[in-house]
Amino acid sequence: MEFFQKEIALAARNRGFHLITSEITSQFHEIGKITLGQLQVFIKHTSAGLTINENADPSVRTDFESHINKMIPENAPYYVHTLEGPDDMPAHIKASLMGSSVTLPITNGKLNLGTWQGIYLCEHRNHGGKRRLVLTAFGS
Amino acid sequence: MEFFQKEIALAARNRGFHLITSEITSQFHEIGKITLGQLQVFIKHTSAGLTINENADPSVRTDFESHINKMIPENAPYYVHTLEGPDDMPAHIKASLMGSSVTLPITNGKLNLGTWQGIYLCEHRNHGGKRRLVLTAFGS
Amino acid sequence: MEFFQKEIALAARNRGFHLITSEITSQFHEIGKITLGQLQVFIKHTSAGLTINENADPSVRTDFESHINKMIPENAPYYVHTLEGPDDMPAHIKASLMGSSVTLPITNGKLNLGTWQGIYLCEHRNHGGKRRLVLTAFGS
Repeated sequence: MEFFQKEIALAARNRGFHLITSEITSQFHEIGKITLGQLQVFIKHTSAGLTINENADPSVRTDFESHINKMIPENAPYYVHTLEGPDDMPAHIKASLMGSSVTLPITNGKLNLGTWQGIYLCEHRNHGGKRRLVLTAFGS
Repeated sequence: MEFFQKEIALAARNRGFHLITSEITSQFHEIGKITLGQLQVFIKHTSAGLTINENADPSVRTDFESHINKMIPENAPYYVHTLEGPDDMPAHIKASLMGSSVTLPITNGKLNLGTWQGIYLCEHRNHGGKRRLVLTAFGS
Repeated sequence: MEFFQKEIALAARNRGFHLITSEITSQFHEIGKITLGQLQVFIKHTSAGLTINENADPSVRTDFESHINKMIPENAPYYVHTLEGPDDMPAHIKASLMGSSVTLPITNGKLNLGTWQGIYLCEHRNHGGKRRLVLTAFGS
């Protein structure tokens, strides 16, 4: 049984959905030491999330941003948490819908993802800055 | 500490929400070898998801499908990822909202779920075909 | 490698979003025995969920409740699962969107959360009563 953990910071990105699989795996070579196990990627923020979705056509990520802005709009008349700007409260709700972590199987030292799967950073603030992640990998 | 992993394919199902708990447990008897641990069910696709919800009245699953189609409609005017058909882009968004994995506690060789809980396959494509899952169980 | 599991009941709460981090950690001191690992909090119900979000300003939790009620309204004309009251079917959908578990990194005997992160109970029923959780902690 092996247990590895590492904290990293992602480069700041614009508001939207961003593919970060290789930014994670290139900074956490310990995945290669695990025959059978899991990787958890956890984000230490409440206005950005993580999800797994298509790693190929960038238009998928464009549509994610368009639709989530419609589903969770800015300036809803019932928001009372408005001091930090119109993008703040929607960012909190979006972050919880997407989730604060993803957990992926590891098989023979590699992430065992489907052909079209990648890890997305869901950046919901206009100026979110760097985002800190805790990476935890374990297994036999 | 035990660590087990198995890849299985779920039978193809119609678009909608489907109870798959027994299809999983019947193909992964290693759960029975774990006294205290977890099972992760991970789906290797980006247009279908997994969630946990009511295992009894099928009308719950009918309403899940009705409501998710309203919350994430087809043919939204702002979608640009439209080449693979009107059900494709909504399927990606729905998959991320539901999530690509569920993790359940194992206690004394069995899934430790609430009385009314079961695992749902959330099939968001009209013709999704077989869906591949990675099952990972571990514990003492 | 250590593996701990405990079932607890949360005090009944009103419909809405509630910070429960300290109610969990105060009942599960085994977290302190883990140097590097994870805690999973799993809810054994289908009409309440768990998520991670801001632990400071309570207005965030107020807005979560306002917006989720708009996104998943009561009495939608297409609901067929209506026998258990108007808050029941929306509660199922909300529970799946928020999710039935959260998994958090443990580092040096403590939850490794961001400064502003806490665990929310998402109580979606008008009278949900006590809610049972399975806590599973493991690591080196």
